[in-house]
This record gives sequence, C-alpha cells and structure tokens, in this order.
Amino acid sequence: MLYKKDLIENFPILKREINGKKIIYFDNAATTLTPTNVTNAIKDFYDYHNANVHRGAHLLSNEATEMYENARKTVAKFINAKTQEIIFTRGTTESINLFAYSIGKSNWLENKEVLITTIEHHSNFVPWQQLSKIFNFKVNYYNPENSLFELDKFFSNITENTKLISITGMSNVTGQVIPIKEIIKYAHEKDILVHIDGAQLVPHFGIDVIETDIDFLSFSGHKMLGPMGIGVFYGKKKFLKKLPPFQYGGEMINWVSIENTDFAELPEKFQAGTPNVGGAVGLKAAIELLNEIGMENIKKHSKKLTKYAIDKMKELDYINLYTSKDTSSVISFNIDNVHPHDVAQILSDKFGIAVRSGHLCAQPLLKQLNTKSVCRASFYFYNTEEEIDKLIEGIKYIKEWFK
Amino acid sequence: MLYKKDLIENFPILKREINGKKIIYFDNAATTLTPTNVTNAIKDFYDYHNANVHRGAHLLSNEATEMYENARKTVAKFINAKTQEIIFTRGTTESINLFAYSIGKSNWLENKEVLITTIEHHSNFVPWQQLSKIFNFKVNYYNPENSLFELDKFFSNITENTKLISITGMSNVTGQVIPIKEIIKYAHEKDILVHIDGAQLVPHFGIDVIETDIDFLSFSGHKMLGPMGIGVFYGKKKFLKKLPPFQYGGEMINWVSIENTDFAELPEKFQAGTPNVGGAVGLKAAIELLNEIGMENIKKHSKKLTKYAIDKMKELDYINLYTSKDTSSVISFNIDNVHPHDVAQILSDKFGIAVRSGHLCAQPLLKQLNTKSVCRASFYFYNTEEEIDKLIEGIKYIKEWFK
Repeated sequence: MLYKKDLIENFPILKREINGKKIIYFDNAATTLTPTNVTNAIKDFYDYHNANVHRGAHLLSNEATEMYENARKTVAKFINAKTQEIIFTRGTTESINLFAYSIGKSNWLENKEVLITTIEHHSNFVPWQQLSKIFNFKVNYYNPENSLFELDKFFSNITENTKLISITGMSNVTGQVIPIKEIIKYAHEKDILVHIDGAQLVPHFGIDVIETDIDFLSFSGHKMLGPMGIGVFYGKKKFLKKLPPFQYGGEMINWVSIENTDFAELPEKFQAGTPNVGGAVGLKAAIELLNEIGMENIKKHSKKLTKYAIDKMKELDYINLYTSKDTSSVISFNIDNVHPHDVAQILSDKFGIAVRSGHLCAQPLLKQLNTKSVCRASFYFYNTEEEIDKLIEGIKYIKEWFK
Repeated sequence: MLYKKDLIENFPILKREINGKKIIYFDNAATTLTPTNVTNAIKDFYDYHNANVHRGAHLLSNEATEMYENARKTVAKFINAKTQEIIFTRGTTESINLFAYSIGKSNWLENKEVLITTIEHHSNFVPWQQLSKIFNFKVNYYNPENSLFELDKFFSNITENTKLISITGMSNVTGQVIPIKEIIKYAHEKDILVHIDGAQLVPHFGIDVIETDIDFLSFSGHKMLGPMGIGVFYGKKKFLKKLPPFQYGGEMINWVSIENTDFAELPEKFQAGTPNVGGAVGLKAAIELLNEIGMENIKKHSKKLTKYAIDKMKELDYINLYTSKDTSSVISFNIDNVHPHDVAQILSDKFGIAVRSGHLCAQPLLKQLNTKSVCRASFYFYNTEEEIDKLIEGIKYIKEWFK
C-alpha cells in the first residue's frame, strides 16, 4: 500500500527528528518532500550528462537534449497532452504570468473581461489584477461568502464580455475541489476560454486535458515530488500557436536580425534561454513514482486522510475549521484564542509536526473568512492516520497550555 | 594549481569516455560542468531540509529559509553588492527580461532610446527589440564591422535621448572582453544607465559592482559551476526600489485586496512564487569553489589557455578565427570548406572533444562575420593545454578527411 517501508526509506527527511520527535510533514500544499529517486536522477544528470540542450553536435549535448525531451514526453503523457503543448516554466507562478502577459499582449482580451475569484492563490490573482491596467482588459471577481465556491453563483458573474475564466482547481486554503469540468463545459458553450491553476489539483487528482477539455493549465513540479524551479504551462496547440511569446532570448527564435525576429515553433516559442534540464529530469522521475503508486490510489488516500482528520477535529469545539464538503488534502483551521503562528511553532518544537501558518498567499480569501491568518495541515500519500492522531494530540496540548 | 587531481575527481563527467577517448569538455560558454560539491549540496538540501521558505513557523521551513538567504549573502559578497540588491532569477535570460519588462513598464524610457549592439547574445537583443514595440521606446544598434567592439565608434551611437545602454561584458562568440568600466564612466557623465549582460564575463573575471559602478547586471549560475534554473539580477538599490515588479504572485506582496496590491520590499518585490531554493543552494556551493580556486587564478588560466589555443590555430592557414586581441576563454572558428556541424560531430565522435557549433544565439553578430554558423571551443579552469593539443590534432584530422 501507500505507506510501505521502502517508500518511507525513499524520503530521508522523514528519518529526521525535532527535539527527539520524528518529523511529521504536513506542509505538502507548500511543497512536497523530494524522494531519492528524484534527487538521484538530478545528480546523475549533472554528474554524467550535463550539457546545454539543442543545436549541440557533441555527445553530452545530445544526451541532455534527449533527457530533456523525454521529460516533456512524460509530462505530456501524464496529463494526456501533446508534447508541443508542454511548456516548461519555473513553476505555477511563472506559468500564470507567462499566460497573462501573453494573452494580455495579444488582442484577445481587448475590451473584454477576465473572470477570476477571491479564492485564488495570489499567483492567480495579482497577475490579472495588475496586468489588466497595462493591457486594457477588465477583471471581474467572484467573491463567495465564506470563501466557498458555489457553481450557480459563480456562473452569475459571467457577462457577455467574459472572454476568459481563470480559476484554481483546488483551493490551497479550504482544500475545496472546484467542479472544473462543469465550469469548462458551461464556458465553452458561451465561447469563453478557461485556464486552471492546477498547483494543488494536479498533485492529488492528476488531470486529463482531453477529458476535461481544459484550454490552459498551470502547475508546479515541487508540489508533486519534483524539485523546485520547474513547472508546466499547458495550452491547446491551436491557441498556443496564435499567442505571442512571453520572454525573449535564445532557444525561442527561428531567426533574428536588426529589422525583426521570427519566433520558433512550439514549444520553444515560449521557452527563452537555457532550460532547467536538471529540473525537468527530476520532474520526470517524480511523475514516474506517482505513476507507480497510481494517481487513483493517491486521490483515495488523500480523501481518506482528510475525512479522518476533519472528523477528529470536529470533536474539538475550540477549533474553527475552514473546510467544505468538497475539501481534500488541505485542512485550514484556527484554535480559539491562540495565534496560528504559536500553534505552528509549538507543533514543530514539541511534536515534530510541520504545518504552515499565515495568510497562505490568499489574502482576499482570508478576508472573507474574517481572519488574518490560519494554520494549515496538508497531506500527501506518505502521511498516515497515526500522524493525524499526533496532530490532534498536539492541538489538545496547545489548547491546554494556553488556557 | 588549477588542474590538481582532486579537482578533476570533483567532476565525474570527465571520467567518461566517448568511443574510448576521455571526454574533453570545451563547451563551457554554453554551460560549465557541475562539481560534486554542488550536486551534493543540492541533494543534501532536498534529502534533509527541503521546505518552502519564509513565513513558515516549522523547523524545516526555517532551515530552508536560512539556506536560501545564506545563498543570497554569498552571491552578494561575490559581486560586492548588498543582499537586497540580489534578485534570484531562472538565469540570465529571465534577468534581462525582468529588467526590460520592468523598465519598460516604468516611465523611464518614455520617448527615450536604449542603445544595444549587434554583438549581443539573443537574450540581450530580442527583449529590447520586441518590448520597444509595446512600451514605446526606441532601440539603437551599434553594429560594428567584423563584430569587434570599438569604444570610440560605440560612443558615437549615443544620442541626447539615450537613457540606457545594455551591452554584454564579453561576447559569447568572439570572446572579446568589452571595456565596461570605460563605458560606465562615460555613460554616467551623460546620465545614462548601464546594464551589463554578465553571462560570459562573471564566470571568468568575476565582477565588483562598486568598483565598476554598474547600475544593473545579469548572470547565470549554470555557466559558473552552478545548476541550471538559477541566475541573478543585480540592480542598485536606489533604482530597484523605484522600478515596478515583473512577475506577480506569492512572496512579492505586502498585502492583496480586490482593490489593489501593495508590493513587498526588496528583494522580494521581484521574486514572485516559490523560489528555486535547491538552485540557490547549488549556486552558493559553486561560488564557494570559485572563491577557493580564486577568480584571479581562473582569469589568468583562461587567458593563458586562450593565447595558447589561438597561437596554435594561427599556424593552420585553413582556419578562420573570429577572435580579437581582447579575446578570452571563447574561441570561435571555421575550417575552410567544412561545415561546423561536421567539425563538432567528428571532434566528439573521434576525439571525445565537446565543442559547440551553430549560430550561438547571436545571428546579428554572425551576419557581420558573414557566416551562418561557427564552431566554438570555450574553456574553464579545469581545461589544460594538453587538451588543446588534442583539439588541434582533431582539426588537422578533419581537414585531411575532407580533402
């Protein structure tokens, strides 16, 4: 099953102790642990195959190019896309900025509206808010009560000028899984494009871009076992072909002269500069492990742990839970009269439990929740019910301590 | 000295053979080899300290934050800057795009001119050319004969509207080292800002931003022993404080609401999203090794090897050399009547020598050289004169073969 011994052996960080307590890692929504098959793949690349890719006629460059393009194939297969549709980026934030700048520079949004929500991570909020001022489009905000998404109310924010919906697939605060299939279907009937921030969704649920008919998708490597500094932007080929590039430089051109520049074909058009080959190689190894475990198993496990934790927390009447019936993997909460930073600090120091605290890069969402910061426990397949029992024990201890 | 045994031991790739020949790596201008102290530092980070940085109250997050900020300190010290002036990017290309977008969005270039040259790498050419169309500034091009920079002729391209000079510190094709100190002094007298593309310069010569009085500087980690996916943008604090952000998202905000966003202080303002902590840790280890060897030694060694190679090549009358008297570390050449791709291919297959061939991401420069592609041998401190002898042997073999 999911927590068999050799899996734990694959995550050396879990052997560490904090003040005599084994680390319990519940900060997976911020970044997941990196297994040794990933770090070994990265080290092997640098130790034996490191070179700059493409246009190299020497052996190392050819090997590096092959490893890089194989990583793209693995990512493409993972989300059921074509390789040309996979743009390697630095992470979700760059993916969304790439998309927002590109579509902003195109004429697609001229006098049109982009619909986003206040449940977004700042990375799917601030780019639209800020770039609307430069590229002359309007942003509409669906601002749900209690920060819980409701399909009907969301649809009522669509106007005849809505050209694009950009929305998270799963909130990084409430853990609510958003009905993106329904959104995409409805949007397409009205000729509206849909971009999904998949930073939280993809690591736990995977995604099939054909089945969901997603137009654009962003996600990160480091939230799904991969290294930092690598992420993915997916777009339907027919759209990517028409959108202008984001960054400019080597790799993304066909030819350059003083007079003009002709851009390269997909996916290079969107990939300026030396790519992070080591990062792509690491992401490939990460996806291979995810495939081995099975996304369906990971999804089930996430749901099971989430239900288990929510049930336990509900027994404690001093806990404010910011969850919904659609919550998975991510549980945000506060303890009455205890600052979330204190909670996180004590959980780490006394129990070896890593949870995150703060505004979780989602201030508009937290404003609706009427709080400035929360604690967040977020799970992945290597977490267990026993670890959640320890979290509950820690919470009880903290409540007692602050009495 | 520079090639003592344990240094070679530090680069496992050098133990590889191609068709029975030990690899000779002469593609350092594209990417340098990665020593094991760098790959071990990266692996140690992921194995034992991996977490998302800042705002985390748990132990791993605090450790990761400290490692990340220590890397920034190491980079700052390396170029004699303040830590707040060090922006981590994906590499030189992102650094230049960050700068070009940021200054483009500001009103600094309104009705003004940016002076660049045709000896630039595409990464310091295409961003200015393309963004001038969006942000309404003009680009002037200094287009030197034979692609060799001459100070007087360069200065004659400055007009009363020139607001910014963006120029390489060292050509990635001709290896010419540009007199940036003189340029900066002259420019500042005329109230012109200077940005240096340090991708080639910094790995070989280091740089002191105080002594040179550079306003803005871009360079990459992977061309100076570090991993891919990490680079640096430096700017004087007084300028960075006034320039608007490039990418938007988490980490770079102070607060966010539907109405507006208040951006964070330096350096966070320019660093949206989860940073590449592993990359920064690797860059720190790289700089530590460079410091141990000594930049002065590296510089001397580069110059010595370059002179040795040029002298040997000049003995062969069928070689076209694209060098100048100021060339260091990078030697581009062609063999009469042999396509550079064939040269690179045969050098790799028959001699285990890795050189690059192609347009080297510098098509305007190559146009002036009247060629579409060249071969390039580029050195670093682990290269030796014996290896250059093998290169010469290879060149002679190829010339004979194609007779």
